[in-house]
Amino acid sequence: MEHTGILFDLFLIFVSAKLFNYIFQKIHIPPMIGEITAGLIIGAGGLHLIKETPVLDAFSELGAMMLLFVVGLHTRLKDMLKIGTDATIVAVLGVALPLMLGYFFILFTDHKGIEALFVATALVATSVGITARVLKDMKLEQTVSAKIILGAAVADDILGLLVLAAVTGETNGSIDGYKILSLFILVVLFLAGVFLVGGRSIKILKTRLEKMKLEKNEFILSMTVLLGLSFLTSYIGMASIVGAFFAGLLMAELEDQHLSDMFDSIYEFLVPFFFVMIGMKIDPKLLMEPGILLIAVIYTVIAIVGKYIGCGLGAARFGWRVMNFVGLGMIPRGEVGMIVALIGLNLGVIDSKAYAIIIFMVVVTTLITPFVLSFVSRRWQVK
Amino acid sequence: MEHTGILFDLFLIFVSAKLFNYIFQKIHIPPMIGEITAGLIIGAGGLHLIKETPVLDAFSELGAMMLLFVVGLHTRLKDMLKIGTDATIVAVLGVALPLMLGYFFILFTDHKGIEALFVATALVATSVGITARVLKDMKLEQTVSAKIILGAAVADDILGLLVLAAVTGETNGSIDGYKILSLFILVVLFLAGVFLVGGRSIKILKTRLEKMKLEKNEFILSMTVLLGLSFLTSYIGMASIVGAFFAGLLMAELEDQHLSDMFDSIYEFLVPFFFVMIGMKIDPKLLMEPGILLIAVIYTVIAIVGKYIGCGLGAARFGWRVMNFVGLGMIPRGEVGMIVALIGLNLGVIDSKAYAIIIFMVVVTTLITPFVLSFVSRRWQVK
Repeated sequence: MEHTGILFDLFLIFVSAKLFNYIFQKIHIPPMIGEITAGLIIGAGGLHLIKETPVLDAFSELGAMMLLFVVGLHTRLKDMLKIGTDATIVAVLGVALPLMLGYFFILFTDHKGIEALFVATALVATSVGITARVLKDMKLEQTVSAKIILGAAVADDILGLLVLAAVTGETNGSIDGYKILSLFILVVLFLAGVFLVGGRSIKILKTRLEKMKLEKNEFILSMTVLLGLSFLTSYIGMASIVGAFFAGLLMAELEDQHLSDMFDSIYEFLVPFFFVMIGMKIDPKLLMEPGILLIAVIYTVIAIVGKYIGCGLGAARFGWRVMNFVGLGMIPRGEVGMIVALIGLNLGVIDSKAYAIIIFMVVVTTLITPFVLSFVSRRWQVK
Repeated sequence: MEHTGILFDLFLIFVSAKLFNYIFQKIHIPPMIGEITAGLIIGAGGLHLIKETPVLDAFSELGAMMLLFVVGLHTRLKDMLKIGTDATIVAVLGVALPLMLGYFFILFTDHKGIEALFVATALVATSVGITARVLKDMKLEQTVSAKIILGAAVADDILGLLVLAAVTGETNGSIDGYKILSLFILVVLFLAGVFLVGGRSIKILKTRLEKMKLEKNEFILSMTVLLGLSFLTSYIGMASIVGAFFAGLLMAELEDQHLSDMFDSIYEFLVPFFFVMIGMKIDPKLLMEPGILLIAVIYTVIAIVGKYIGCGLGAARFGWRVMNFVGLGMIPRGEVGMIVALIGLNLGVIDSKAYAIIIFMVVVTTLITPFVLSFVSRRWQVK
């Protein structure tokens, strides 16, 4: 009977996602908002037809991975390396500004320093899934803005990891410099490994597999690299989607046109789960508590303005349009913010109100970005 | 961290499945046995690298569904209707003979009647996944034998459902004739619905979706029918793979050559989970208890001989070769046998020894069939 429930969940999510995707496309609202709306309607905030389970969480995670993998497939490794420095500057400014603004604001609302630090840390990491989907839906993957955003999202995730390690250390009484340093070295080694030997290894592996006459070797190799790198990045504490993006980048080095087609169906099947689950997690009751609403709104404005200005400034040398698009594209916060909130709650350093504020910010930044990005990209040609 | 574990599981299962599939192909052993071996090695019976989780169970179920869906895609509905009567005779004889033989054997070993009834019921339902994979791997889907086996597996599953309902009723003191009758009517209505209006509805729906200019409408329709029918069959108590097979049959009515290609990658990704999980569930410790080994072996021989002769006789009018192949193809028992065992254990009508005997029979019938079928189909041309 347990399986019957899972099949019902999968059926309901898939069908409602495709239905609302279609309806929203017809009324010219970004279709991913349709998928999120589907989740809102069938989930805890709506008809209660469905609730989160480990199986659905796994499908959602695989969906996000598949999304970033396919975006990676359409991106060239050498283009990413070319914009590496710019992306890093964008990420650093985009992390520093919201962190500082958030910290002082929460401190100002009469909370303890450690709580302020945690709530500010939740502002750090951009969740690139939303923006990646806009880039893919509007076929903007080849623009300079897209490359900066994707590169910055990677750097951003690394910075987020380090800040979280520092803040968690601070909670235990002292920042563990050794742990942070070793984390940093681990991440740098991982990146160096992927960039320096990854592309070549993939080509060698591919030739080997062809010689072995392994059927469907491109697909098997892709899936292995995708699952392997996603696991590794998750294992060292980064988001699995960063690993999935790297996997896409590496497989793109093979320059095999069919590769992208092979993932068409899996993409169509899995990606909606990510967006529907975003909607399912939204609990409108959060808005009902008036006491926290004002703080939540200001905190969200800081999240938006901090990222927009920080990241925008980082991309200054590319001119106004890129600055604008990059700044907007980096706004959405996602799972990482929620994870920080959850860790803080479990450690007992933030209370349930602070938790609600963080979730509110994640929801709002997630929901507004597709609208704004679609609007901007229709109005001005994105570079 | 929970996600890290899931990603590790997915990576390990996928890679080991493909590796052992390749190795076994090279040494001329059916590749699916390689995938089962991979599961045996990494699972509880081997290196303990991995254990069953709800997420892996869901992937395994989806894998089995995908397998039967693709087999259904290569089968014509009207061919199935043509062999309907023969398939039903095959199923009835293949259910009756093992049920009787099993019942009297267990009764003879000095067990209570109700326990004998349960252990015999576990012999009823063929698990068509193993045979379907052989048919697909050896490209035998278009043979008469294949059609009889697939049709009989459907009828067999319905009979199994009714027998289980009767036996469970008997446990509660009286057989609930009303419940069994209503179950039967439900199943018949479902089948009639699928066969009579299914094919036409699919064609109409497809035209509608095309007019609506829904992108990738074939894939979305397929996935919807697959998940929907699998859920429905599971909901009324049948195996979800029967619904998946029907979904494939219905989609085949569109005669769209690309449809099968669209499911290529999803098939390659998901199907190995089904076979690796079979291996993971095998616990070699079962063989260690000498007291039950003899009974288990005789019970397994009854399982094999009962199905082989029962189903073989049912296909008598097609001649020796078809009789032989159909009889062998119906041997594997799977999830349904295990579910019967589990229900009996939970109801307290069978003990852990009887449970172990059933699991032993499931494992042996599952493992020998691919060898025997491959051997036979290489030696004599299958009709």
